[in-house]
Amino acid sequence: MTEALPVGSQAMMQRDRASASLGMIVHRNEPGHAVVSMVVRDDMLNGFDVTHGGFIFALADTAFAIACNDSHHVTLAAGADITFLKPTTSGQNLTATALLRVKSGRSGIYDVRVTVDDDVTVAEFRGHSRTTNLPVPARNHL
Amino acid sequence: MTEALPVGSQAMMQRDRASASLGMIVHRNEPGHAVVSMVVRDDMLNGFDVTHGGFIFALADTAFAIACNDSHHVTLAAGADITFLKPTTSGQNLTATALLRVKSGRSGIYDVRVTVDDDVTVAEFRGHSRTTNLPVPARNHL
Amino acid sequence: MTEALPVGSQAMMQRDRASASLGMIVHRNEPGHAVVSMVVRDDMLNGFDVTHGGFIFALADTAFAIACNDSHHVTLAAGADITFLKPTTSGQNLTATALLRVKSGRSGIYDVRVTVDDDVTVAEFRGHSRTTNLPVPARNHL
Amino acid sequence: MTEALPVGSQAMMQRDRASASLGMIVHRNEPGHAVVSMVVRDDMLNGFDVTHGGFIFALADTAFAIACNDSHHVTLAAGADITFLKPTTSGQNLTATALLRVKSGRSGIYDVRVTVDDDVTVAEFRGHSRTTNLPVPARNHL
Repeated sequence: MTEALPVGSQAMMQRDRASASLGMIVHRNEPGHAVVSMVVRDDMLNGFDVTHGGFIFALADTAFAIACNDSHHVTLAAGADITFLKPTTSGQNLTATALLRVKSGRSGIYDVRVTVDDDVTVAEFRGHSRTTNLPVPARNHL
Repeated sequence: MTEALPVGSQAMMQRDRASASLGMIVHRNEPGHAVVSMVVRDDMLNGFDVTHGGFIFALADTAFAIACNDSHHVTLAAGADITFLKPTTSGQNLTATALLRVKSGRSGIYDVRVTVDDDVTVAEFRGHSRTTNLPVPARNHL
Repeated sequence: MTEALPVGSQAMMQRDRASASLGMIVHRNEPGHAVVSMVVRDDMLNGFDVTHGGFIFALADTAFAIACNDSHHVTLAAGADITFLKPTTSGQNLTATALLRVKSGRSGIYDVRVTVDDDVTVAEFRGHSRTTNLPVPARNHL
Repeated sequence: MTEALPVGSQAMMQRDRASASLGMIVHRNEPGHAVVSMVVRDDMLNGFDVTHGGFIFALADTAFAIACNDSHHVTLAAGADITFLKPTTSGQNLTATALLRVKSGRSGIYDVRVTVDDDVTVAEFRGHSRTTNLPVPARNHL
């Protein structure tokens, strides 16, 4: 009995300890479209009591990784840029929504908006992906 | 007896729970020049067993924040871009070196190189700063 | 008899010698939405016989400038990034479509797609704007 | 009698009509290091009488293209970002200095500073290159 090959984003998220340790919740996992949320914790604050940019980037990056791993080959982030628009702090619930902008050969561009309270934009992120020849690792057998 | 006003980066790092929780060590804290290191932990790995981009960004972002907070006013990150050049994994020791590129009025550009094993470049980060009118918060009295 | 104050993009384009000298045609000039086209000329080719990136950037930048100059104050480009996806060459008709992504205070982010033959994406551009206190210059009296 | 294969940047600049039509002068053409200057003309001004960003980008992009075409294979710009720091205008002499930041496999990052009057920074540009398998075209036989 053969196991169907996993789509990248499913196998990836099953194993992703980083996103799990940050308390991220995946609300949508579709090719080219992902929604992930995370509540800001005290240990995510910088010295000015606002959310450290690294954690906002991490949330957006996870949404980007889900949206771009839509095949049976590993897709990696080649790079990304982020613009910080509003500070946030502990206890706030951030949501990152990633959408495919364009694909061209093995390269892709994905836009991720990070919002708080459902409508205020906290950050805008643009990710550049590159699809490799590596097959997606099989699921864990737990 | 008056306490001297802290330079931003000193007060900031004394309070920075995010960088502390990620195990970052500050090796250099000078105006326009910072060096910070971090050992990659298992809970920083993504689903492909490589360091989640968010943690590499966080390391570079902390080095950037130290380098740009060189006055008694709070300087914030307006945005940043990062290029990922080599994957890393658990147990590796990453070092981020931030240097001022240019200042123009309240805006600054800082370049951060992230290396592993002292010479291999893992990522290149460019941060854009904006200095505010806010005074740096006083040190904690512990 | 008073002359109505011009919206920035109208006064700006009336005077814009650079866009005119490159043969750009403005098809749409609305707040947050602009469409501009340009036919690639022989003197826009680089040494590999493809359109020099500077001219693709210039086309996208003009569309961005129109979309963001939607008030009676001058809005300037603080910066932009561009990704080149397909080479083009002499005789091809390029179209840049700029759309507002988000505004936050005096800052804005605009996305510009450059296409050829109406559907193939040649480049993606993201512009960062900053609105100043400077009033838009009056129209020329020709 | 065989003709030596040209290094990319030499063959490229010999044919580059775009840079020539903009009046660019190449002062330095070395692997990983290029210096190019250009005098701003009236037909390079936008509607606010400042140099259109496209021409500043074009100058930096040419310096980047020279610095990265250091082999017998064509190297292309995958993308770039630019930050505009000071406005300039007609008659000013702009100089772009490109330096290799890092190479990793077929990818490279180059930083280009654009200055006026030799010391004031007008713009900062970061270019991302990708080396192809295409051989550099032979020199023109004039």
